[in-house]
Amino acid sequence: MNAQDQYRIEHDTMGEVRVPKDALYAAQTQRAVENFPISGSGLEPAQIVALARIKRAAAIANRELGILEADVADAIVAAADEVIGGAHHDQFPVDTYQTGSGTSSNMNMNEVLATLATRHRGSAVHPNDHVNASQSSNDVFPTSVHIAVTGALIEQAIPALSHLAEALEEKATLWADAVKPGRTHLMDATPVTLGQEFGGYAAQIRYGIERIEAALPRVAEVPQGGTAVGTGINTPLGFPEQVIAEIAASSGLPITEARNHFEAQANRDGLVEASGALRTIAVSLTKINNDLRWMGSGPNTGIGELRIPDLQPGSSIMPGKVNPVVPEAVLMVCARIIGNDATVAWAGASGSFELNVQIPVMGTALLESIRLLSNASRVLADKTVAGLEADIERAAALAGMSPSIVTPLNRLIGYEAAAKIAKHSVKQGITVREAVIDLGYVERGELSEADMDKALDLLSMTHPGVAK
Amino acid sequence: MNAQDQYRIEHDTMGEVRVPKDALYAAQTQRAVENFPISGSGLEPAQIVALARIKRAAAIANRELGILEADVADAIVAAADEVIGGAHHDQFPVDTYQTGSGTSSNMNMNEVLATLATRHRGSAVHPNDHVNASQSSNDVFPTSVHIAVTGALIEQAIPALSHLAEALEEKATLWADAVKPGRTHLMDATPVTLGQEFGGYAAQIRYGIERIEAALPRVAEVPQGGTAVGTGINTPLGFPEQVIAEIAASSGLPITEARNHFEAQANRDGLVEASGALRTIAVSLTKINNDLRWMGSGPNTGIGELRIPDLQPGSSIMPGKVNPVVPEAVLMVCARIIGNDATVAWAGASGSFELNVQIPVMGTALLESIRLLSNASRVLADKTVAGLEADIERAAALAGMSPSIVTPLNRLIGYEAAAKIAKHSVKQGITVREAVIDLGYVERGELSEADMDKALDLLSMTHPGVAK
Amino acid sequence: MNAQDQYRIEHDTMGEVRVPKDALYAAQTQRAVENFPISGSGLEPAQIVALARIKRAAAIANRELGILEADVADAIVAAADEVIGGAHHDQFPVDTYQTGSGTSSNMNMNEVLATLATRHRGSAVHPNDHVNASQSSNDVFPTSVHIAVTGALIEQAIPALSHLAEALEEKATLWADAVKPGRTHLMDATPVTLGQEFGGYAAQIRYGIERIEAALPRVAEVPQGGTAVGTGINTPLGFPEQVIAEIAASSGLPITEARNHFEAQANRDGLVEASGALRTIAVSLTKINNDLRWMGSGPNTGIGELRIPDLQPGSSIMPGKVNPVVPEAVLMVCARIIGNDATVAWAGASGSFELNVQIPVMGTALLESIRLLSNASRVLADKTVAGLEADIERAAALAGMSPSIVTPLNRLIGYEAAAKIAKHSVKQGITVREAVIDLGYVERGELSEADMDKALDLLSMTHPGVAK
Amino acid sequence: MNAQDQYRIEHDTMGEVRVPKDALYAAQTQRAVENFPISGSGLEPAQIVALARIKRAAAIANRELGILEADVADAIVAAADEVIGGAHHDQFPVDTYQTGSGTSSNMNMNEVLATLATRHRGSAVHPNDHVNASQSSNDVFPTSVHIAVTGALIEQAIPALSHLAEALEEKATLWADAVKPGRTHLMDATPVTLGQEFGGYAAQIRYGIERIEAALPRVAEVPQGGTAVGTGINTPLGFPEQVIAEIAASSGLPITEARNHFEAQANRDGLVEASGALRTIAVSLTKINNDLRWMGSGPNTGIGELRIPDLQPGSSIMPGKVNPVVPEAVLMVCARIIGNDATVAWAGASGSFELNVQIPVMGTALLESIRLLSNASRVLADKTVAGLEADIERAAALAGMSPSIVTPLNRLIGYEAAAKIAKHSVKQGITVREAVIDLGYVERGELSEADMDKALDLLSMTHPGVAK
Repeated sequence: MNAQDQYRIEHDTMGEVRVPKDALYAAQTQRAVENFPISGSGLEPAQIVALARIKRAAAIANRELGILEADVADAIVAAADEVIGGAHHDQFPVDTYQTGSGTSSNMNMNEVLATLATRHRGSAVHPNDHVNASQSSNDVFPTSVHIAVTGALIEQAIPALSHLAEALEEKATLWADAVKPGRTHLMDATPVTLGQEFGGYAAQIRYGIERIEAALPRVAEVPQGGTAVGTGINTPLGFPEQVIAEIAASSGLPITEARNHFEAQANRDGLVEASGALRTIAVSLTKINNDLRWMGSGPNTGIGELRIPDLQPGSSIMPGKVNPVVPEAVLMVCARIIGNDATVAWAGASGSFELNVQIPVMGTALLESIRLLSNASRVLADKTVAGLEADIERAAALAGMSPSIVTPLNRLIGYEAAAKIAKHSVKQGITVREAVIDLGYVERGELSEADMDKALDLLSMTHPGVAK
Repeated sequence: MNAQDQYRIEHDTMGEVRVPKDALYAAQTQRAVENFPISGSGLEPAQIVALARIKRAAAIANRELGILEADVADAIVAAADEVIGGAHHDQFPVDTYQTGSGTSSNMNMNEVLATLATRHRGSAVHPNDHVNASQSSNDVFPTSVHIAVTGALIEQAIPALSHLAEALEEKATLWADAVKPGRTHLMDATPVTLGQEFGGYAAQIRYGIERIEAALPRVAEVPQGGTAVGTGINTPLGFPEQVIAEIAASSGLPITEARNHFEAQANRDGLVEASGALRTIAVSLTKINNDLRWMGSGPNTGIGELRIPDLQPGSSIMPGKVNPVVPEAVLMVCARIIGNDATVAWAGASGSFELNVQIPVMGTALLESIRLLSNASRVLADKTVAGLEADIERAAALAGMSPSIVTPLNRLIGYEAAAKIAKHSVKQGITVREAVIDLGYVERGELSEADMDKALDLLSMTHPGVAK
Repeated sequence: MNAQDQYRIEHDTMGEVRVPKDALYAAQTQRAVENFPISGSGLEPAQIVALARIKRAAAIANRELGILEADVADAIVAAADEVIGGAHHDQFPVDTYQTGSGTSSNMNMNEVLATLATRHRGSAVHPNDHVNASQSSNDVFPTSVHIAVTGALIEQAIPALSHLAEALEEKATLWADAVKPGRTHLMDATPVTLGQEFGGYAAQIRYGIERIEAALPRVAEVPQGGTAVGTGINTPLGFPEQVIAEIAASSGLPITEARNHFEAQANRDGLVEASGALRTIAVSLTKINNDLRWMGSGPNTGIGELRIPDLQPGSSIMPGKVNPVVPEAVLMVCARIIGNDATVAWAGASGSFELNVQIPVMGTALLESIRLLSNASRVLADKTVAGLEADIERAAALAGMSPSIVTPLNRLIGYEAAAKIAKHSVKQGITVREAVIDLGYVERGELSEADMDKALDLLSMTHPGVAK
Repeated sequence: MNAQDQYRIEHDTMGEVRVPKDALYAAQTQRAVENFPISGSGLEPAQIVALARIKRAAAIANRELGILEADVADAIVAAADEVIGGAHHDQFPVDTYQTGSGTSSNMNMNEVLATLATRHRGSAVHPNDHVNASQSSNDVFPTSVHIAVTGALIEQAIPALSHLAEALEEKATLWADAVKPGRTHLMDATPVTLGQEFGGYAAQIRYGIERIEAALPRVAEVPQGGTAVGTGINTPLGFPEQVIAEIAASSGLPITEARNHFEAQANRDGLVEASGALRTIAVSLTKINNDLRWMGSGPNTGIGELRIPDLQPGSSIMPGKVNPVVPEAVLMVCARIIGNDATVAWAGASGSFELNVQIPVMGTALLESIRLLSNASRVLADKTVAGLEADIERAAALAGMSPSIVTPLNRLIGYEAAAKIAKHSVKQGITVREAVIDLGYVERGELSEADMDKALDLLSMTHPGVAK
């Protein structure tokens, strides 16, 4: 086959372009492919679907408002349904690193849908005059990011985090009375239960969900209808309301029209805010996974309170070694979310006048963060948390070894005397109880043996209520 | 005076320490002063006050729950009132870069209040056994950060942002019909009004307030009552409820008890979340101030749509130069908030087991961010936004020069023909109207002169409604 | 075909695993595929090649030091050559988000090479005992990152940056005498030439190359030979020297042995440093591309000193619009590099004791940054800088309109009198020369007309030498 | 005293200003004080001194090049010497958050020196025409940052880091043969010596010094001589060379003239690079301090290989508790450096055309980072590293308990058999030696007892050389 057979000639307002023969897209997509050989990858699939949803809704609104003939609109709807169904994802070859408005990706969608709609209709459907009618890349593209992000947060992140929280809560219940040493500054402190710790982890994750929900109202607001600069030029009256209602209905997402179209068109602050919520969750997961790793450290030279499930050989040189591989993977996901968050904030601050022109990288980074967070949360829940085993005897024994269990004595003999006992216990390598006796507190009648034993009961130290 | 007269000897559980003769603090504070000669500055004043508020509330709760004698408690209350009133801020010399739990600052407060309370009572009040009764640094210190941050957000940041939003809204109203060129990708686009732009800026700031409010519920939750490790060891039953109710009442802030004391004690996620909200506002302010600077650029070689108030000579070498100095200062504040946010997230992720040990730097960074943001917002409102003047004629003239005003013709003659006109106009240096005629659209009857003129009306381009 | 035909059974120290029938890899790779369904993508190709280079060099060193039989070693070399040649990149399915040591990827390589080497040899080659002989994931995997990064910096980034610098330098020469207004604080300042500006941009890029070169010595140091914990356990004496010499020879890269194997094994500080260099270059490119965008702003309502090449239609709604699409793409690349840098620093700080366990994400992020930077620099040079056109007349006219051209008069009549002239010129809308005369300086003999004209010559203001 | 007596009237090109009666500064400083009530603090002292150094050197160069009369120049030199000596630091009240060029601080210095020089000379010295002669804020202010940063790096950071490295090296020597368990993934690995670990820490710090030194050439390059926009307008020929030579001579710092004045004037990339070096050191210190904290964890429920010096009571509630307070303070310093680095990069990317206008915040943040790093390094060396004690018996005992000591058996019986032994040892709670025997390897003659014992020698595992 000669080159001539592999390409067809398309044209746009700048002239002719050679396009792969069977491509559904046309001239402008091809120009973009040639202009941006940078990363080799493009929009996240969720955003491709969101773009098609907008086109579909716009066709319906345009039909109802008399902008498009019914057969044109219906053909576009049918075409969009194909893309939403996932049939043509390979027809979107434009790089993430393209024009900052995402115009190339919007035109890519316009061209693909025009080709498909032309097939459905049997006569020409135009990418700009029909598919893009009453729209501009400047409202369509950011709207597609907000739809995709809203959907990913609600449909992926929140369920995955809930799943993780449940797994942690199950352990919290299981280990509600498993006493272990508290550790502050990494140093021996008064006891807690393993269940209390896991309850805290679960709460962190539940709060993470609240954080996402707190940001959602501003993420779900979309600029659609503002067209070129937020003014809604070239839209019929009533267009934004209709198109957004249609998107909300067809997607089942709580998408709303921007309260202020100029704020919504020129800025992506809502994405920066959402990224901040994800970043906070990454911070939570970092703490949780580090704790899991430390509690599972050993088996013989570490803390050894937990056994982390064995998923694979841990070392290519040290035989029999088992490592906390899932927590490590999750920690790397956190590092990536932290980085993506920096990208989103940096890009978010770069706008001028009526448009931010770093939208594609914001969309790709944020959708990647949500995808990684969701997958990592499920892997963590299923492959590690669910299979955790506690060494309850060891934990209890360690709890009793902490010199800080002297703390309840503060009330009975004062902080300074208690400090003396704690130091004596560490120095002599004896228990706190032995140190109390050794230093004569019982003998001198400063503390009765009964009071001492009541005060030194470990489990009672894991709840409030002053020993009296 | 010899050295002996300048110091007195104090002791703690580790032994003797020389303390400045007139210091209200004692041994542990002095040890910390000597241990941490690092930054030369300590807690933000708002946090010192918050610490004193906790001690005051704890004394009251301890009295009511039978832990402290009334005269001891009352003496502590009187002492705390002095500190809350601002009388002794110079008595808190401990560096921000100290032990990560803030124990040194908590003990500094305990010691200062013990000294003052001893004066009030006339007999000894003990820093640990009395002032710190039913408390631990591990609940007191983070609680003080959350109280101070909650207060600063509600009492400083939100009012200052509201003030700025009002100043912007005033301009939005004033310039509601002042047509100017829209700019996307920095390139000439269809017109907007200056009022629309300022309305968008005001909306960004209003949304910033929403962002703070969305984060507040989790910032206002405090770990008080968890004592050493979240279990509430050494507290009487009912203590957290009482102490927190007292803090809320006396401060007027919506402080609430942690829903999960283990989450609250071990993590500072709420601070990371709050910092993310401030970071988003910094992103908004970056966009707004860059726009102001560009619109005020010139006077002769820039955009020159706005005149920014002259506050000071702009250059030490270029006479008569006037610069947008306040927007620049605000942009630097934004850069600092971005940095502080990175510090807060980094520190927030560093916790282990029952405690985060980077709390002081989180408190100092976050309170600095709020202070800078609040002050900068007021300066921006009062010294720049309020005094902005628009060059309305120039703006309108520029609007008419944008080739993108061809856009309403899409509906009448199609996108491709309109593109031809726009390019012809730029190439020939003629107006869009002239280009339409020059290319024969009127002559050929493809477009009536009336439709053309209606379509090319600038002000009507700043609202939706397709030209028909 | 039934399921049984699609899989074969492999085993490792943990038991049996079902592996795709034709896979070159075996049990441990398959476990990792199942354990880490997180991002869907794995190591950058450059790192796969680097891993194979290490295995090849290790086989040679092991043969020479008597650890491996010649035929085993030779078979491994032949196998590695296949991978280095790019033949089997689809055989490395392990996710980036895996165990933090990269053990799964190291074992993936061990298994693929064992399979291939077994074919070459005709009898079994073992992934651990042979391919991994004298090695550990803990030295192999980080070494592979350092080799890949060193190679990418030297072979991709530096040439691409040089290419960009040359393109900028060409314009600097071309426009050496094209006077234009300087702008400081975005306000009219004394003149510069467009060539001076482009010379500055080129210098930034050249300095960027210096920054990479300054970091290279520590990036090119590799831990190979430290095996499990840096001690070199299970290596023959002389192994690190031989293996690294072989890698350096075969790759042509200046790879060196770690000066301290414990620093090199436990930390990835060299990668953090390298990322910092890339981050600085991203900062440079941000400034350059923003300048290009602003100088190209317009065509009619902006600065309009440059015409940026038209690569594609700029708007789906505004016909004829042309946007600076490549600078925008490059700015998004910069935002990504900034984010990747945050990821690298965060991950780099997470190590404990003998190992950092966030190496895969560091490698992937850093190699992505280098790839994006290199591609973006070439696209910028070829598709934008090379085709820039200056509007030299407009630039010169603007230069003359800046009130700051009054500056040379400081020396002749003092800063305060010069300020008076500048302000008079702006207020009256007259030229600086007219303002001098209007205010009577010539008439009163304070300034001769000749001195005035000499002082106000624009081109002479673009070089030092006080007008006397 | 009435208000009239507290102020005097000054004027500048904008009119009259009321200035505190005894202030050495004048109108422009006062305007800035009133314009920027934002942070309440201004330039770091090191930058005030650097500004005075420039003024001093400029006066000398101006005298030699015939721009200033000798008596004027000499008076400025005398005035500058007073400021360099530290006599008037309270006369620089301008906030860091001011005009982004630092013009207000430059004029503050011009005004203070003009006042002092007028006293020395006995007749008027003018702040602009004399003190600022041949200069602009746009070259002076950034030059002052680079001088101050160069000085702080060379005179503070490097010596402090060297001091820390020495303290670490001393321990490395002391503990050269103290065997302890290696830990990778936090799990038991093959042994290392404590000396090897401390040698690694010391190497990290030594590399940190190399990182600073690698960045210094570009930090030490200064824009002085470029005046307003880099062209050197209003400077005599030869000025930059002379002024910079004078600065270098008087300061003893390796300050050099910018190779390209346009790069140097418009960008602060060298500061971004330097900040990246400090950031890498913060990453190193984070790892080191976390290791110290973990090795010191306990005393009874943690790792307990090190005893960290007791500097102060660790807890206000848990008596006798001792915490690693200095490592925590250092970790918070690292968090701050990370944040300052984000500020510096953000600000560094914000420049336009001939000037970056976020210089003051860059200077303040970077100089703060250096100060904190230097102080923290010394405190860490002197108050923690120097006093560390190892629990050598415990460390050795732990080393023997690690199942990974099976590793040398790979060579003798293969990886898979060794894995079987390791797992058997952990499962049965027996030593590796016992497991070898228990599984029959000796009995079956697969391994002689002598070979086994040689292979299992702990100290020999801390060096290369395969057991044969």
